[in-house]
Parts: sequence; structure tokens; C-alpha cells
Amino acid sequence: MARIVMKFGGTSMAGTERIRNVANRVKREVDAGNEVAVVVSAMAGETDRLVGYCREASPLADPAEYDVVVAAGEQITSGLLAITLQALGVHARSWLGWQLPIHTSAAHSVARIEEIGTDAIISSMKAGAVAVVPGFQGMTRDGRVTTLGRGGSDTSAVALAAAVKADRCDIYTDVDGVYTTDPRIVPRARKLQKITYEEMLELASVGAKVLQTRSVELAMKEKVVVQVLSSFSDAPGTLVVDEDDEMERELIAGVVADRNEAKVTLVGVADRPGVVASIFGPLADANVNVDMIVQNIAKDEGRTDVTFTVPRAQLPASTDVLEKAKDAIGFQSLIADDDVAKISVVGVGMKSHAGVAATMFRALASRGINIQAITTSEIKVSVLIPKDYVELAVRVLHTAYGLDGPAPADGDDA
Amino acid sequence: MARIVMKFGGTSMAGTERIRNVANRVKREVDAGNEVAVVVSAMAGETDRLVGYCREASPLADPAEYDVVVAAGEQITSGLLAITLQALGVHARSWLGWQLPIHTSAAHSVARIEEIGTDAIISSMKAGAVAVVPGFQGMTRDGRVTTLGRGGSDTSAVALAAAVKADRCDIYTDVDGVYTTDPRIVPRARKLQKITYEEMLELASVGAKVLQTRSVELAMKEKVVVQVLSSFSDAPGTLVVDEDDEMERELIAGVVADRNEAKVTLVGVADRPGVVASIFGPLADANVNVDMIVQNIAKDEGRTDVTFTVPRAQLPASTDVLEKAKDAIGFQSLIADDDVAKISVVGVGMKSHAGVAATMFRALASRGINIQAITTSEIKVSVLIPKDYVELAVRVLHTAYGLDGPAPADGDDA
Repeated sequence: MARIVMKFGGTSMAGTERIRNVANRVKREVDAGNEVAVVVSAMAGETDRLVGYCREASPLADPAEYDVVVAAGEQITSGLLAITLQALGVHARSWLGWQLPIHTSAAHSVARIEEIGTDAIISSMKAGAVAVVPGFQGMTRDGRVTTLGRGGSDTSAVALAAAVKADRCDIYTDVDGVYTTDPRIVPRARKLQKITYEEMLELASVGAKVLQTRSVELAMKEKVVVQVLSSFSDAPGTLVVDEDDEMERELIAGVVADRNEAKVTLVGVADRPGVVASIFGPLADANVNVDMIVQNIAKDEGRTDVTFTVPRAQLPASTDVLEKAKDAIGFQSLIADDDVAKISVVGVGMKSHAGVAATMFRALASRGINIQAITTSEIKVSVLIPKDYVELAVRVLHTAYGLDGPAPADGDDA
Repeated sequence: MARIVMKFGGTSMAGTERIRNVANRVKREVDAGNEVAVVVSAMAGETDRLVGYCREASPLADPAEYDVVVAAGEQITSGLLAITLQALGVHARSWLGWQLPIHTSAAHSVARIEEIGTDAIISSMKAGAVAVVPGFQGMTRDGRVTTLGRGGSDTSAVALAAAVKADRCDIYTDVDGVYTTDPRIVPRARKLQKITYEEMLELASVGAKVLQTRSVELAMKEKVVVQVLSSFSDAPGTLVVDEDDEMERELIAGVVADRNEAKVTLVGVADRPGVVASIFGPLADANVNVDMIVQNIAKDEGRTDVTFTVPRAQLPASTDVLEKAKDAIGFQSLIADDDVAKISVVGVGMKSHAGVAATMFRALASRGINIQAITTSEIKVSVLIPKDYVELAVRVLHTAYGLDGPAPADGDDA
């Protein structure tokens, strides 16, 4: 017997028929003798509907009241899942954020979970009742409704799993696990049986949308074993675990492409102390999230070029900020380029293996792909390349690191 | 300066544009220097949508979880109204059922309000913030969500008005007050400036759908001054008040038709002690709500006929129950007739005036309308007539009691 937290996303909860499918999966775990808590998202589209109402009511909606409105979506699916479980003969009840309670910070619409009351829910689970908990919502210390920000239900699930000391936190989504890369680009992409928290974090931060970053950080901190699997198939999923638990380490866990960055180059920046601060200070003040930074060595006349990337959506704001600070920074010209993509390879194995970056550069060069910028972390190497080469680069790297699985069935027929 | 509770129904809250209209009405009261609490319904159609989900999930949905689902509708409009008020520069915050709290009985989906916590909301109102409260919802003593049953938001408003000792409870709806009869039947119907609780109760119970019966009972008990008015016009509404406050008493407040009853006649019932119990006992057990009862005097062979009315929707169930009990009751035949309507005249004035019923019978007889059954209370006389005569009967009685106002403008042109 195990204690399990199961989490179902909006696609899995979209309509009473899909909720019945979810209830059947929950029943299977109950029938196997497990204690189960289920964290649910709102029906797909519902949160957007509620957010739309708030925006119509006021573009600057009070976040505290916004939370009252949007938290309703998960309240609805929680009650419906409890009803559906009971219809299947499974004892169940819902526990809203204020009922557990799930205490959060007072940062409405982006609140952080601080503490979850577990006495009542644990004794209810021990008595055989499935606990249904709305994701995404909580309560401030003075009793107001909060939400955790979009995608926050993953975090709710992991936090609940940590609080009730669950043996496992199963995140059901519309993909059946974490892949070595996007199977739409590389048909030979393989589903990973296991991945470490660190790898999952790097994958999430570079654009793999399987799990919300905060939920992975929390799982790592609290040592919650997370499993990613599909609510629409019975295929085994991917386990996200601590590095120590990994038996056979692969060098690279995956290759990820991120098309949401844009490149800015400041040409002819005076090479003097403090110049970098004069560039990135104003950007930080404008809440621009700068990612890759490359500073060339000084050329003639003590001037240099500085290149960096920003989220594509923030490119106009960034150029605006920089043009206004042109005199203070002292650059000659600004080149903006949104025709770029970031390709990253991620793997804890590279901590102990040299040559990972060299393999990357060699593989890309062999196909004539020009590298515009490079950043590295302990378990990640990222390069910026022209966007047209994204698919080619991903395929080349997937092969270069030996990640290709067998050709899929469809491919055999072709 | 007064303290006012305003209540807006689902039609008034249907969409952000209408919520803005509501917010403007609230702002007007605030600008006039009043302390205001607003009780809101869910958007028109929303509760039906949520109830539909519950039915799809299970025809026998757990009422406790049903309440979790359907209470979300009012939560959404509460947050949206608070946001909209703030956008108009009005300080406002929402108070959900569990936040006040509104303590209710544990009878889920038909709960009764027991006590409302008022310390926080009153000090918030005194500090200048409009309190926005979802109608229809509350919380049990052990912290579970409850709802009060359909139409319960009127009751929420009156209960809140009583709890915060409001000077007035304004119920905004899609009609602009209480009329002497249905203006669609009698164009010369007049809007009443005042009506007593007792009259309003009788009108509500015989089918005038302006206020929910429970809310009027509560207003009477707690002496809450209720005003019914339209959220779509600025016309003055109707005040529902204590009888003592009424200055000029009219004999009759209104004439109401109810088409939702059906007639059952048991022919040849043995005229012996206990026979009435043998008829109405089984009906009560089947939760059939029997209304008018007429027992003729015994005819030949110690047999009599018993006639009564039941809600039209319960007619099949009623005949079913009676046919099964035929031997125990000992009647000869059963005649069911849903081609009937009940016409009632209501007025506290009839307590002190004789001849009200006689006027009714004479007026109906003058137009050849046959009376099939009669019931009376202290302030009401009801008769059962063939359904085809409904409009004629209402018009004849409206004139007979001197209720006709001036012909409406449209009528002048015709």
C-alpha cells in the first residue's frame, strides 16, 4: 500500500466524460489498496474564460478579487470529480484551498505555498476517502483567496505530496512522459524512463512545457518522486528523481529548442568599467529577462560589441529602453534580430564527461550551422543559431549524442 | 446616511456590461453617503450550467459536493463586481460565505441560514468599503460549503440586512415592483407603492415570482424593510413593510393566477372516520404537496366525493399513489383534471371587511365562470376555475375590486 498524489490538468478535466475517465484512473489506484489524493485543474478553457471576464471588468483588476474569480474553475472540477468518484462507488470528498487550509504568501495571482494543513485530510484518507483538492489556489494568513499563477496546479500537487509524505506524485497530462526531444521534430525521440530534478529543471527552463518549473524546484527541495504520464493512455511515464537514484546514467537527457528568444547586439560599446551595468541596469528596471550574454574582446579604439538575448515578446520594450539610454551607455548602433533560436543539450552526465560542448560544436559545424552565442551551466550547453536551422540542429544533435531510438512504426511503413 | 443592502439577480449580473450597470447603481448609493453591502446572484444561465454538470456526473450527486460546484457561480460574480466597483473608484471587497462566515444548517442544497458573522464586514463598511457578498451560499459549522436552494439569494440579502441592521434591503430584479396583477393580462394593472409582508407572502405562495417566499418570511420575522425595484430603470419600486406602517389600506393588494395546479376527484369515497387520513397519508409520504381540499357532504349510501389540487408536475405520481391505495381508501373512481387554474385575491384589508369573497363569486358568476373549489385564509380567497377562463377572470376581478389604474399610453393610442 502506498500513499499517492495524482494530478490532472485542464485537458484531462475538460467535460464530464473526461472527468469520468479520470475517476476510473483514480479508482484503479484505490482498488490497488492505495491512499489517494487528487489535485485537479480547471476545465481546459475555463480559466481563460474567467481571466477574460476580469480583464473586461478592468484591465487593472485587483489581484485579490481576480483570485476570487479565477479560483472558481478548480472549485467546480473538484466537486465534479468527487461526485463522479462517488458514482463509481469510491468514497471521496473535496477539500478547497481554505478548507485544508493551503496557506500561501499574500502575493495575489502569483502566491507561493507556505504551509499545508494535513491533519484532517490525512485522517480522511486513512479512513478510505479519496481527497480531491483544487490546484492553483490557496489562502492568505488573513483568510483571503489566492492563486499560484498559471500552471500552478503542478506546484499544488507536489506541495501536497510533500505535506502528506506521499510515496509518489503522478502528474497526468496530455503527453505520456518526458522525451529526449520533441517527437514532432525527431520521430526517433525516445521517452525517458527516468530523469533527474536538475535535468527536468533545465529542460523546463529552456522551453519543454511538460512540468511547471516551480513544481520541479519544489520536488527537488522536498525530494518528492514525480511521475509524468498521460491520462489518455496506459503507457508507463517518466520518473523525475534524485540523481542518486539514477542507475545507468546517460550522458545527455535531451535536446530542446526554444524559439521564444530574440537577439540584441550593441555595436561599438566603450570598453570601460561599469559599462555592462549601464546596459543591463535599465533592462532589469524594465523587468526584461536577459538570458545569454556575449561580450567580445575590445577591438580598435577601446570599443567592443555586446550581444544578449531577451524574450521575443520583450524585444520592442528592450530596444526602446536601450535607445533611450544610448548616451549613458555610449554605443554606436543597435542591431535587433528575432530570427534566432536557442538549442540546448541537457544532462547530469556532462558534469563528469568532458567534450560534450565540443561534440555539439562539431556536429553543428558539420552541417554548416553558424553559432551566434554560447552559454553553459553545469548540466547544460546552449547555443544561439539562425531560426531556419532549428529542426536540422535538433536532429543532428539527437543523433550525435546517441539518443536516437528505433524508427517508429509509421516510419517503417513509409 | 443609511446602511443599505442591495441585491442583484442573475439577469442583472449577466455579463461584464450589465455588471458595470450594477456597479454604477451601487456607486450612486455610495456617493449619496450610504454604507452599502451588495448581494449578488450568479450570471443568468451559469447555475443551470453547473447543475447540468453535476447531473451529468451523477443523477444522484452528493449534495455536499453539488454545493461546492454550484456555489462557484456567485463567487465569480462577487469578484467581478468588486473589480468593477474599484474600476469606478469605489473602494470594495468581496466576502465569500465562508469568510463572513454565513453559518447555515447542514441540509446541503436546501440549507437554512443560522447566523451571520458581522464584525469584520461592518467595520469594513464603516471604513468606506462596499461589501460584495455572494448570495445563495453559506458554510456548515464544520466548514463545508452549502447552498440555500434556487432563489436563495433573496434570502441571503434579507438575512444579511437583518444581521447588519440595515435600514433597507433593495432587491433589484427584472421587474420594477409588485403589481396588482400581471400587466401582460391586465394592461391597467398598477404598481403598488407599498405591500405588507403577509400580502407579499400570499402572493409569492400563489405564484407571483417577484420574491422568494423564504426571503419574505424572514423579512417579516426580522422586520427588514424590503424594496423591490428594477435594475434596468430608475422607476421607484414597491416597499414591503409591516402592516402598522401602511397608511392608506387598500382592500385588495392584488389578483394572481396560478396555472401550475391540477385537480383530482375521488368519486364514491366511503364516508367513514379515518377516510381522509387514508387519502392524504399516502400522498404526504410521496412528498405530494396537496393544496385545496373540498369534501362534499355524504350522498346516498354513505358515500361522498373528495376533490383536491396537487402541483401539475406531481399529478402522475399522485394518481399512481392513489390507484395503489384504492382498496385501502375504498373509492369508486378517480378523475384527474389538469385543465384548471387557481385565481386568488390577496389583501390584509379583508381581515376587517366582510363581503370580499361574495364580491368574487358574484363577479365570476356574472361572466359565467364556474367555480370548482374554494379555499380561504385570513387575507386570501382562492378559487379553482377552468383554465380557459384565466385571463377573463383576472380582468373581471381586477375591475371588481377597483384596482384598475389609468389606461397605459399604448392603450390610448389604440
